[in-house]
Amino acid sequence: MNISEKILAAHSGQKRVSPGEFVNVKVDMVMAHDLTATMALKQFEKMGAKAVFDKTKVVIVPDHFVPAKDIAAAEINKNLRSFARSQGIQYFECGQESGIEHVILPEKGLVLPGELVVGADSHTCTYGALGSFSTGMGSTDIAVAMTTGEIWFKVPPTIKFVYTGTPGRWISGKDLILYTIGQIGVDGAIYSVMEFTGPVVDNLTMDDRFTMSNMAIEAGAKAGLFGVDEKTIEYVEKRAKHPYEVYASDPDAEYEKIITYDVTDMEPQISMPHSPENTVPVSKASGTKIDQAVIGSCTNGRLSDLANAAAIFEGRHVHPSIRCIVVPGSQEVYLAALKQGYIETFIKAGVAVSTPTCGPCLGGHTGVLASGEHCISTTNRNFIGRMGSPEANIYLAGPAVAAASAVAGEIIDPEEVMKHD
Amino acid sequence: MNISEKILAAHSGQKRVSPGEFVNVKVDMVMAHDLTATMALKQFEKMGAKAVFDKTKVVIVPDHFVPAKDIAAAEINKNLRSFARSQGIQYFECGQESGIEHVILPEKGLVLPGELVVGADSHTCTYGALGSFSTGMGSTDIAVAMTTGEIWFKVPPTIKFVYTGTPGRWISGKDLILYTIGQIGVDGAIYSVMEFTGPVVDNLTMDDRFTMSNMAIEAGAKAGLFGVDEKTIEYVEKRAKHPYEVYASDPDAEYEKIITYDVTDMEPQISMPHSPENTVPVSKASGTKIDQAVIGSCTNGRLSDLANAAAIFEGRHVHPSIRCIVVPGSQEVYLAALKQGYIETFIKAGVAVSTPTCGPCLGGHTGVLASGEHCISTTNRNFIGRMGSPEANIYLAGPAVAAASAVAGEIIDPEEVMKHD
Repeated sequence: MNISEKILAAHSGQKRVSPGEFVNVKVDMVMAHDLTATMALKQFEKMGAKAVFDKTKVVIVPDHFVPAKDIAAAEINKNLRSFARSQGIQYFECGQESGIEHVILPEKGLVLPGELVVGADSHTCTYGALGSFSTGMGSTDIAVAMTTGEIWFKVPPTIKFVYTGTPGRWISGKDLILYTIGQIGVDGAIYSVMEFTGPVVDNLTMDDRFTMSNMAIEAGAKAGLFGVDEKTIEYVEKRAKHPYEVYASDPDAEYEKIITYDVTDMEPQISMPHSPENTVPVSKASGTKIDQAVIGSCTNGRLSDLANAAAIFEGRHVHPSIRCIVVPGSQEVYLAALKQGYIETFIKAGVAVSTPTCGPCLGGHTGVLASGEHCISTTNRNFIGRMGSPEANIYLAGPAVAAASAVAGEIIDPEEVMKHD
Repeated sequence: MNISEKILAAHSGQKRVSPGEFVNVKVDMVMAHDLTATMALKQFEKMGAKAVFDKTKVVIVPDHFVPAKDIAAAEINKNLRSFARSQGIQYFECGQESGIEHVILPEKGLVLPGELVVGADSHTCTYGALGSFSTGMGSTDIAVAMTTGEIWFKVPPTIKFVYTGTPGRWISGKDLILYTIGQIGVDGAIYSVMEFTGPVVDNLTMDDRFTMSNMAIEAGAKAGLFGVDEKTIEYVEKRAKHPYEVYASDPDAEYEKIITYDVTDMEPQISMPHSPENTVPVSKASGTKIDQAVIGSCTNGRLSDLANAAAIFEGRHVHPSIRCIVVPGSQEVYLAALKQGYIETFIKAGVAVSTPTCGPCLGGHTGVLASGEHCISTTNRNFIGRMGSPEANIYLAGPAVAAASAVAGEIIDPEEVMKHD
């Protein structure tokens, strides 16, 4: 079996599972955020549920509209806070040791290798980077999981991706996943698991792996998994508060497909408006004037993302006609970035540094776009209207490209900015 | 003449002016922000104006709804940016060397002693701390000033306030002005100038003086002025890019009233809901449970304000049930606070640190209140609905009291928090 099948088998109490089979699984963690939890709680009440199945395994993370962007958001938070208190579950208050859900759950050891996690957010697949099976679900399913601790799945087939070759200095996890979605399309992995393998991803930081798993959903995948290696163990060992099981794909594991990419000559990648699959090498987008750059989100708001941006901004300044917004993914990331001097670099460069929030990614607040504007963003979706006006254009990229473009005032290869010194 | 009369006389080309007289004056600076500039520009067009009277003397500061909180805000910014470019006037882009208008105009030397400044914002009176006559006006008047460089006034009478005694460790400019408004009421200085004098204000930092001048409007005053002393000169000398004139009140200057307060035994002050004049000593409000604390704004978002808050937060943590939002008033303040270690103290304490914005003060974004919530805030208005729900309660205070209350989870004297170590 492959890693995904092994996790589903273990959680359904079976020896083997195969793609297409229906299984009922126990969940290790159920998550909802400020936009989805309200609907889940309505369902929870409708079912006549009194208590969550395990108060250590249900969390609510208010992150989309915090700090409360309007009265409606404030009222939602008030209700969720009150529910969390009455149930004794964790509610990650804005400002406290909090942040964006998909950044903080791994950070706090709330998701570990081999676990099965469901969340009322499509980017719950992020935790695949830890070798856990994690996926997003609708609020009704989440309410069931919150109440019973179980959920059903049709076991998905797995597509194995093998990344080989020697990537250049500016190639990050974001470039690999944008390239991959560009190759297979936004429907290229519908209801499948993407398993990311090969020497190139072995060399990736955990942060870069989170970025890749995070965007598996943008190819339609149910989950995006990495094997567990020394880097994973190093990451989780200092965070884990309970034991966990490591699963690895067998040498004879079955895959629906195996796709190999040699990334040796890969340029940094950009997804052009209005779909993540419209991926081109940065040289094909160079010179496109931009109005705003956003660096952050559950996709690219971790420390090494900020390090990549800071490497560009060090001694440079945001172009006068651009507003650039950097959003650390959590208070932990913010503090680490501060200690590394990145925050100082950003402020000196003329960047607006926000408190952790999903805000701009979903056009919620903290950097919404006007009609006709062009925005380069390290977020995960460039659909029409995603970040504000339906007449705005969004270009997805990694942090180095976004930072370099903020400096140049137009889309540019980071290498070009670095050599202009 | 007093300082206000001297500035109005000099700007109207007259030797003397007296209260009640109508004068036409030349303005040294005209300011509008993202909420008011749009209306001013409509009037500008309606008048058939083609150009501002002097492109170095008109500025637009987008600060209320930045980073753009929604599409409407983004569209407004787009239009203002385009107007500013076409006119060649300064537009302080979010993230760039920008911030809250009343923090950045003095910071950048755009307002100097002896000048006459009008702004499309009621808290334009802030610059009185520099010994300038500055006041807020409606957008139509501002459009006239932008076009002609002139505006008319009825010369206001002046009330002289004399602060004597020895204030305690935690008494800031905010406490003095809240106390004053509590004594005279929100209509206590209608269409008058408040002139702040005496040994206590002589000892205040410039930041504390800005706080006092800022809230003159909350007593209905047209302006709130300080004399120019060594501290003022030190503040402006490193910022001034053009010459300025210093005016001082004559020993025989006439005042409508002279009011003296001995502040020796003054406790830190709190203005209870729902009016700035509902001022009580902190001991009368102690124990009131709060949900949110906001530290920042044009009233209290300067470096020494953040220093006072950091002194409380150092080694302490925001109460688990509270969200605390700190908003540095400008990028310059943010950078200085970062270098002083205050930002690190805030993050470690569980504070959400925002990019400079007016956001929460006006219930715009970045910390809006729900019904039934209680918020302690260093901002300037606690009217019903000011910070969100009309069923929320706002308690105005200085940064030390707000920080101490965030730690305690209820309103408390900073001294109580400090001695609990």
